[in-house]
Amino acid sequence: MARINDNYLKLKAGYLFPEIARRVNAFAQANPDAKIIKLGIGDVTEPLPQACRNAMVKAVEDMGDRANFKGYGPEQGYLWLREAIATNDFQARGCDISPDEIFISDGSKCDTGNILDIFGKDNKIAVTDPVYPVYVDTNVMAGHTGEANEKGEYEGLVYLPISAENDFTAELPNEAVDLIYLCFPNNPTGATATKEYLQKWVDYAKANDSIILFDAAYEAFITDPTLPHSIYEIEGAKECAIEFRSFSKNAGFTGTRCALTVVPKTLKGKANDGSEVELWKLWNRRQSTKFNGVSYIVQRGAEAVYSPEGKAQIKELVNFYLENAKIIREELTKAGLTVYGGVNAPYVWVKTPDGLSSWDFFDKLLHNDNVVGTPGSGFGAAGEGYFRLSAFNSRENVIEAMRRINGK
Amino acid sequence: MARINDNYLKLKAGYLFPEIARRVNAFAQANPDAKIIKLGIGDVTEPLPQACRNAMVKAVEDMGDRANFKGYGPEQGYLWLREAIATNDFQARGCDISPDEIFISDGSKCDTGNILDIFGKDNKIAVTDPVYPVYVDTNVMAGHTGEANEKGEYEGLVYLPISAENDFTAELPNEAVDLIYLCFPNNPTGATATKEYLQKWVDYAKANDSIILFDAAYEAFITDPTLPHSIYEIEGAKECAIEFRSFSKNAGFTGTRCALTVVPKTLKGKANDGSEVELWKLWNRRQSTKFNGVSYIVQRGAEAVYSPEGKAQIKELVNFYLENAKIIREELTKAGLTVYGGVNAPYVWVKTPDGLSSWDFFDKLLHNDNVVGTPGSGFGAAGEGYFRLSAFNSRENVIEAMRRINGK
Repeated sequence: MARINDNYLKLKAGYLFPEIARRVNAFAQANPDAKIIKLGIGDVTEPLPQACRNAMVKAVEDMGDRANFKGYGPEQGYLWLREAIATNDFQARGCDISPDEIFISDGSKCDTGNILDIFGKDNKIAVTDPVYPVYVDTNVMAGHTGEANEKGEYEGLVYLPISAENDFTAELPNEAVDLIYLCFPNNPTGATATKEYLQKWVDYAKANDSIILFDAAYEAFITDPTLPHSIYEIEGAKECAIEFRSFSKNAGFTGTRCALTVVPKTLKGKANDGSEVELWKLWNRRQSTKFNGVSYIVQRGAEAVYSPEGKAQIKELVNFYLENAKIIREELTKAGLTVYGGVNAPYVWVKTPDGLSSWDFFDKLLHNDNVVGTPGSGFGAAGEGYFRLSAFNSRENVIEAMRRINGK
Repeated sequence: MARINDNYLKLKAGYLFPEIARRVNAFAQANPDAKIIKLGIGDVTEPLPQACRNAMVKAVEDMGDRANFKGYGPEQGYLWLREAIATNDFQARGCDISPDEIFISDGSKCDTGNILDIFGKDNKIAVTDPVYPVYVDTNVMAGHTGEANEKGEYEGLVYLPISAENDFTAELPNEAVDLIYLCFPNNPTGATATKEYLQKWVDYAKANDSIILFDAAYEAFITDPTLPHSIYEIEGAKECAIEFRSFSKNAGFTGTRCALTVVPKTLKGKANDGSEVELWKLWNRRQSTKFNGVSYIVQRGAEAVYSPEGKAQIKELVNFYLENAKIIREELTKAGLTVYGGVNAPYVWVKTPDGLSSWDFFDKLLHNDNVVGTPGSGFGAAGEGYFRLSAFNSRENVIEAMRRINGK
């Protein structure tokens, strides 16, 4: 009989967001009149920028004209999009990233999971705790861990706790690790990283020949001009870091699907025979073999993000969500809750009151106020006692959710 | 230092199509006036059906309206699309496939590679020879093989030769294998499978507890009413087969990106402890964790394939390419070549003349006639001495390519 990948059996319960959906659906069915406001999953709610829509309609029209029709595109993405990204997201900030180091994909969730394909089984892997669950689950599925303990921590992973005590920025590991996941602005805590802090990580990675997997999906929410948007703003990062970016949260592409991964040609990994191998070549082979590029229509939409109108519309969109985050912070503070994040980030990280567990607070908020958030414990053992609220919703819903929580 | 996945180093040269692109680009640069006609890669050339374009423009408009805006969709795809597929592609042909057994994805290339995620390392795997290279390369990358020999055959894989002698339909293996890749109508040979032939495979798979990975990407090209379009038309297939389908070749979605995979809930695999595990659950977990669904806009385009206008437009498109295939068959036969396929399939499989190797014939056709095909040896050792021509091009280009080859 065909053998399954037994590593899947190590995974605990469902993936976090399907479990939330399950509880919300059950509540909604039992309470059909409840007006549920979702501040749980980090999903955008506002219309796609006009510039992106115009570009996509034009691209659909191209597809109807034999002369402009596009079949298979480059698996790495169209050069015009990669050039726009290299110029605007990297070179404009002093990062020496070239278009051929950029790989367009259909999502950062996919890429942060798929990147493990090119790495071996014997790497020591570090994640923060709490952390975006996909980093952990994909390592479990790839057989890079043992079983989970009762707290949900998997044997073999190095967990770096982040909490109010360390300002939600992990300490460097005491041991040498090979792969390190970092995410700034952080999901779920909304914390940010200074250049000085990231420099410590880059120095550590270079000293230990580690690779940093840097998730910058929320960089557009940075308003503080002293904070870096890209790991490549840090000296030496091109020798030790892969960066993931997405159009999901800046341009509202969660349902449109486009992202990118930067693999500098200067990155190396070690083969069994001790030789050093370019990671770019491996990722390029992976994408050429197991991926067929992103829809031409969607890539044209992403390109429009870099037009003057696109830039203005995206700024407006991001500011809109940031104002939501500000309202959430202020109102929860008024309600007597302790809050973190929500500045330079679309997530507010709340300490649950009265020693409630994260899921108990989830159920309380759902049942009493009909507001959906995300239990901190869903992001890791050290997230227990915390709760994430997302700024992705209409102004009206955010104000109404805060009114309910505040009991006004 | 971070360890790489050493299995990548076993891969021979580049993936086939990038290598073709490299040779064609070199020739084009050296011969800027040459009017190259590409009948190589199986990429469509004709405009996207009007029904699909209308639906996508409407979907882009939805994205501009807060009330209709779509963020993250179900990782498995929208139910309306899965229902249309279940009804039209399966239930209408007597196959008892339900919408929740269908998973929408961005491509069959991705899915045929990614499916290996849910299987273990110790499976015996069979492929035909020649074969679509992605099946082999993704097994190499996943560590399911040893090294390749000088013919390019990987240690550990079971190769089932297909040739004119067995009518391009492989014999059943002499040994028990766990996973079997089958593709009908076949890429690259254009061969088809009768119900009786597929019944033998299903019976074999059930007797040996094997899983058939059935690639039906070209089913729309079947015109013979006696031939099955889906493996699920075969008695017992729901207990032993996963089916891959795509909108690439029927609706011209190679650059638009949409496909689907059917994983019946009746399929089982064996865990290390001997227990049986539903493959559906594993694939659902894989897709929920490492994928975020296909663009809403693209899914609306795919849905339109099943509208009355969509069906009519797709039929016209497929007939157009089938007429091209007929012309290629007839003209090459006139030129004295021996040809196979090209009926119920968009590929014509040509015996190279004068004992030329596949790549020599590729270079000859490129240099003498400025026509690009695909060397049979690129699909496996047993493809040596064959050559694939694709019917995906304009009528004008097909006629002109045949004129050149015929020396008229």
